[in-house]
Amino acid sequence: MAKGLPKRSEDYSLWYNELVKRADLAENSPVRGCMIIKPYGYSIWEKMQAAIDKMFKDTGHSNAYFPLFIPKSYLSKEADHVEGFAKECAVVTHYRLKNDEGGQGVVVDPEAKLEEELIVRPTSETVIWNTYKNWIQSYRDLPILVNQWANVVRWEMRTRLFLRTAEFLWQEGHTAHATREEAMEETLKMMGVYATFAEEFMAVPVLRGVKTESERFAGADDTYCIEALMQDGKALQAGTSHFLGQNFARAFDVKFADQNGNLEHVWGTSWGVTTRLMGALVMVHSDDDGLVLPPKLAPIQVVIVPIYKGEDERAKISEQALKLKEELEARGLSVKYDDRDTQKPGWKFAEYELKGVPVRLAMGPRDLENGTVEVARRDTKEKQVVAIDQVVDTAEALMTEIQQNLFNRSLQFREANTHQVDTYEEFKEVLDKQGGFVRAHWDGTAETEDRIKEETKATIRCIELDRKEEDGVCIYSGKPSKGRVVFAKAY
Amino acid sequence: MAKGLPKRSEDYSLWYNELVKRADLAENSPVRGCMIIKPYGYSIWEKMQAAIDKMFKDTGHSNAYFPLFIPKSYLSKEADHVEGFAKECAVVTHYRLKNDEGGQGVVVDPEAKLEEELIVRPTSETVIWNTYKNWIQSYRDLPILVNQWANVVRWEMRTRLFLRTAEFLWQEGHTAHATREEAMEETLKMMGVYATFAEEFMAVPVLRGVKTESERFAGADDTYCIEALMQDGKALQAGTSHFLGQNFARAFDVKFADQNGNLEHVWGTSWGVTTRLMGALVMVHSDDDGLVLPPKLAPIQVVIVPIYKGEDERAKISEQALKLKEELEARGLSVKYDDRDTQKPGWKFAEYELKGVPVRLAMGPRDLENGTVEVARRDTKEKQVVAIDQVVDTAEALMTEIQQNLFNRSLQFREANTHQVDTYEEFKEVLDKQGGFVRAHWDGTAETEDRIKEETKATIRCIELDRKEEDGVCIYSGKPSKGRVVFAKAY
Repeated sequence: MAKGLPKRSEDYSLWYNELVKRADLAENSPVRGCMIIKPYGYSIWEKMQAAIDKMFKDTGHSNAYFPLFIPKSYLSKEADHVEGFAKECAVVTHYRLKNDEGGQGVVVDPEAKLEEELIVRPTSETVIWNTYKNWIQSYRDLPILVNQWANVVRWEMRTRLFLRTAEFLWQEGHTAHATREEAMEETLKMMGVYATFAEEFMAVPVLRGVKTESERFAGADDTYCIEALMQDGKALQAGTSHFLGQNFARAFDVKFADQNGNLEHVWGTSWGVTTRLMGALVMVHSDDDGLVLPPKLAPIQVVIVPIYKGEDERAKISEQALKLKEELEARGLSVKYDDRDTQKPGWKFAEYELKGVPVRLAMGPRDLENGTVEVARRDTKEKQVVAIDQVVDTAEALMTEIQQNLFNRSLQFREANTHQVDTYEEFKEVLDKQGGFVRAHWDGTAETEDRIKEETKATIRCIELDRKEEDGVCIYSGKPSKGRVVFAKAY
Repeated sequence: MAKGLPKRSEDYSLWYNELVKRADLAENSPVRGCMIIKPYGYSIWEKMQAAIDKMFKDTGHSNAYFPLFIPKSYLSKEADHVEGFAKECAVVTHYRLKNDEGGQGVVVDPEAKLEEELIVRPTSETVIWNTYKNWIQSYRDLPILVNQWANVVRWEMRTRLFLRTAEFLWQEGHTAHATREEAMEETLKMMGVYATFAEEFMAVPVLRGVKTESERFAGADDTYCIEALMQDGKALQAGTSHFLGQNFARAFDVKFADQNGNLEHVWGTSWGVTTRLMGALVMVHSDDDGLVLPPKLAPIQVVIVPIYKGEDERAKISEQALKLKEELEARGLSVKYDDRDTQKPGWKFAEYELKGVPVRLAMGPRDLENGTVEVARRDTKEKQVVAIDQVVDTAEALMTEIQQNLFNRSLQFREANTHQVDTYEEFKEVLDKQGGFVRAHWDGTAETEDRIKEETKATIRCIELDRKEEDGVCIYSGKPSKGRVVFAKAY
């Protein structure tokens, strides 16, 4: 199966596309830009969802559901928001089809034209703040800490599986608060939740920072983000948390009476992660043989492959293997025993490498005699022969070890690919030859940012939250700067 | 809060609408026919989802995700399907808005017209069978047992929260099989899963049966269903499982090579339940004081309300209450301790009755002295004073007891409201005066079915799977019949 997977070093982009398809994560659908998430890919997404959802609930949030459709006029209510989102979206204009009189299937019924067009939600701030208006009267109604898991549509011209699709799945949190401080605290807290999820579950180290004005969410006062580095040296924005100020409260007239009875506009936040995380997961860890999944998100954590000739051997090995499976499952591991006789062991080895299963156990007749099992780990490809009564402990320990190793490995990669430069020449050279994150001084103007983007395709990924104050001069304009920002070419 | 909830006996329909809103389950959105599922309502839906999803996985199914949009031409490929679904649906015709030149917000950009219109999925058979075509080559690729959790849109003129909405949430299972027998087995198995869920989790007894031809899913050879009876004597279809035969395989040219290398069309099923189940849950159990939730689906299973004057009493009671909460949670119960001082105990009692919390514990200073707790159950409104060291056992036992009582009560109600009639006069009288399920002989023709529907508004809910063979004559036409079918007026 893995035969013929393109090499990362030769064509990273093709490697990614082929891997996503061959590992049964997702495929393109006949509808332009919309993907089909296949069962194996979806089971990884479900594990992500479960972990994230638990973190939301542990921080006091509840789920709810708001309409798929947004009246066109709502988009116009927040001035920046409409600029950012009204452009490329799916517009519903009619609500009925009818049989074509010429017998050519069905056609849109011109008599079923909507009075006001509906937009398929590209994000839900407008419809949600319109609702919050009715939910909020007094400070006692605050805070509102709500999230929804939903599909959204943003009409994209160039799409790539998981990374950029017209329809994607995501969660969007929308909270309402009595004070600026509380809303800001929430914004930062959720950025923290995303960072923890990325690092502890995905084993993907991330930078935490704030976006420049030009990279902000349309309608936010500030956008915080987590940024990860892919193996090709390009950055990927993995999650954003927006401090909305009172912008949507003003646009939708959402006020509350404070303890003294004064009416004030409500403060808001919104935050989201999407199926894009699947793309990051693939691109950070995987190799030329296929996926490499962190154990915490692997649908199958251990696969057992029997090596046998004839029914007799198969039966004997199966007995041991199924016992082992049971013991592993008792430790909370998800285990697959693959004794299909339609495929050879070598084929299965390649298949489970392609699928990124963290640990593979192989049992042959020799193992049966010796009371051993061959244990192979996916991340390093190391194999060891382990006494059968030690296998469960070994496999369990490997879960922690592989999870940690993947994180360490990608952290090392990121460190090795994070550069600090002081001149524009250096800047361009690093971007050209090595890629990665580049820390450099910037004069704080959108003009400089735009020019650098035009000339090098690099954008400011974020102003890191823990950056050092440091006097310097902008690499582009030579104007004074008080600290470095992080540039990179990005997905 | 509960004050002023309309009485079921006076206006059942108004009672339902008001209850759904006041208990914070859902509300109407500004988009016609689309609802907002509020956090409390959504948390019940999440519990339903979790239970159903587990049952699907235990029966070998995996989740996946298919596109929201369906090319218009796909709908036409299956002749019956297009008749059933192409009529009332949301049609996307454009993919861009632009600023209105007159400054009136945004307008649809006429230059961004889609070549082929897209339909917001009313159900996904077409797009999924179009995909299965690529997934299936040989008998080794079968069966495919896939489900998706998704939103769908069917443009409805008259909508009611949960019961009939333009957008609703559901799951749709789509399976593919090598033989008719296997597909039929799957169809019946999933009807069984739905029936088990309804009875064991929702505590709603259901009839299991097959639809008549005119009530079948558009594109199915047979539609199996579960049917529940509401307190107003109307039936509600709570889940359907369709045997699709080879219809969609033919429409989308999906064939497989069998063991002998012969190409055959694949056999299919599809099955779904929707947020409509929320409506059934409300309508079967609730009363004039509010929701009555079965413990297995209650987001809060036990609420503890302290009764105190002053900080001193509050502190003493809180200490006991929080200890109790911890002990209850250790038994796996979800518990809320409500010591807000902004509301009085009486208000809280009414509030948690409205919200359907199965068990309420009240602790006052007298209880503290005596080492007791007042335990009230929502279903029967019975109260008892229990020694504090017995409360955890009592509450735990009540979970089982209330769950069972709700089922028994609704089963008794259904039995009392299921009638057997032999003449059309009787039939009409029962429907007029009592409602409920009516078992009667029918001649098997769509014509008779239609006429009865026209004259009485009653439809054939199903032909029960366990019905007795019994010779009789059709109540309408007098023609021979081999068994009774179940009629009712329905939601």
